[in-house]
Amino acid sequence: MSRFDAIAFDADDTLWHNERFYARAQERFRALLAHYHSPDWIDQRLYQTEMRNLPHFGYGIKAFALSMIETAVELTEGRISGADIQTIIDAAREMLDAEVELLEGVAATVAGLAGAYPLMLITKGDLRDQETKIARSGLAPYFRHVEIVSDKSTASYGALLQRHGIAPERFLMVGNSLRSDILPVLALGASAVYVPFELTWAHEAAERPLGRPGYYELAHLGLLPGLLATLEQADLQAS
Amino acid sequence: MSRFDAIAFDADDTLWHNERFYARAQERFRALLAHYHSPDWIDQRLYQTEMRNLPHFGYGIKAFALSMIETAVELTEGRISGADIQTIIDAAREMLDAEVELLEGVAATVAGLAGAYPLMLITKGDLRDQETKIARSGLAPYFRHVEIVSDKSTASYGALLQRHGIAPERFLMVGNSLRSDILPVLALGASAVYVPFELTWAHEAAERPLGRPGYYELAHLGLLPGLLATLEQADLQAS
Repeated sequence: MSRFDAIAFDADDTLWHNERFYARAQERFRALLAHYHSPDWIDQRLYQTEMRNLPHFGYGIKAFALSMIETAVELTEGRISGADIQTIIDAAREMLDAEVELLEGVAATVAGLAGAYPLMLITKGDLRDQETKIARSGLAPYFRHVEIVSDKSTASYGALLQRHGIAPERFLMVGNSLRSDILPVLALGASAVYVPFELTWAHEAAERPLGRPGYYELAHLGLLPGLLATLEQADLQAS
Repeated sequence: MSRFDAIAFDADDTLWHNERFYARAQERFRALLAHYHSPDWIDQRLYQTEMRNLPHFGYGIKAFALSMIETAVELTEGRISGADIQTIIDAAREMLDAEVELLEGVAATVAGLAGAYPLMLITKGDLRDQETKIARSGLAPYFRHVEIVSDKSTASYGALLQRHGIAPERFLMVGNSLRSDILPVLALGASAVYVPFELTWAHEAAERPLGRPGYYELAHLGLLPGLLATLEQADLQAS
C-alpha cells in the first residue's frame, strides 16, 4: 500500500508560469506612471491597494486590474488619462489570454505520477481563468479531481479532504507558496512539498517550516518522483 | 420513493436579489456619462462591451466593473475623469459588500423542502462573491451541495450530475434564467421550474419552452412545495 491516498498540486508557478505575467503587467504599470512617481513608491502603493481590496475582490487578474486602476487614479490625483486606463485593462485581458507555459519537468512528472497515485489540482483565483488554464495546459487528463477555491486555509483544506474522504496523514500537497500550499496543510497533519519558484508575490511569503514533520523541499518538480520513491522505501523498511 | 433525487436552486434573483444591484450601479453609470451621451446609447454600448469581454472576463461584478470602466473610456474618448473612474470602482465594491436580501417566501420554502429532498445550490459568477453571499444568506445549512460554476451549459450540468451520481430524470432545477437554469437542464432530460424575476439581464433572455416535457412555471418560489406535492401525487396515482 502506498503512503498517500492523494497527491495534490498547486497550479500557478507550481505547474505553469503565472507570477511572470503579473510582473510584466506591473512593469508596464510602472512605466505608465513613471513621470509621476518612483518605481518603488508605485509598487508599494499598488501592494497596499491590493491588500485593502483583497477582502472585497479576492485573488486573480480582474482583482489585480481593478487595484491597478484604483492606484493609478490615486497616484495621479485623478489625472490619469483614459488611454492609460485602457492600457491597464488591455494588460489584464492579455494576461487572461496568455499561453499556458509549463515549468520544466512538469509534463513528465505529472504524467508519470498519475499512474501511481490519484492526483488532484488545488488552485485559487478566478474560476473561469483557472478553468481555461487547466484546459489549455494539457494536464487535465492526469488529475482525478480539480478544486478551484477562493482561499487556501487550514479550514478550506480540511473541508476539502473531508469531502473527498481523505485522511490528512495520507495526503501530500505540492506547491510554491509557503503560506497557501504548505503551512495550512502541515497544520492539518498532512505532508507538504515546497518547490520554491524564482518569483513570489509578497503576500505569499512566509518562514520556511524547517524540521516540521511532513515538510519537504525540492529545487524543482522533476525531483518529486525520487522523493516519493524514498518515502515509500522508508515505509517498506519500517514495516 | 419521491420523484427527485435532488432539487437544485439557482441563487441570484432566484433566492436573493441581484439584478437590482446591477441596475442601480448602471443607473449611476448613466448619470456619470449623462453629459456625453443618451441613456439608451450608454446602455447599448455597455452591453456590447460586456458581451465582448465575456469570453475573457466571465460573469460577475468585477467583470462588470471592468466593462463599465472600458465603456466610460470609449464613450468619453478618454476624457473620463479619475474621480469618475473611482466612482465606478466604489460602486463595484459596494455591490460586493451589499446585504443579501432574500426574495419573498424563499426562507420558508427552502427550509421546508430541505426536510423532504436533498437540495443543491448551483450558481455562476465570481467564486468569492458567491461564497460570501451563500454564507451571509443564512441558507447554507439547507443545501447538501453548493456548486459554483463558471458557466451553466448542458455540458456543465451533465458533468455535475454525473459527478454526483444523479440521473437527469430524477433531477429538478429551479431558477429565473431560461438560458442558464432551464433550457440546458431540459436538454438533458431533467425537469426545470422557471420562476421569472422582474428584472432579467438581456444576456439571459430566451424563449419560454412552453409544452416541453418536464417544464414548469411558477409566479414565485412559495408555490414550489405545492407543485412538488402535485407531481408526487400524480406519480402515486400512476403507479
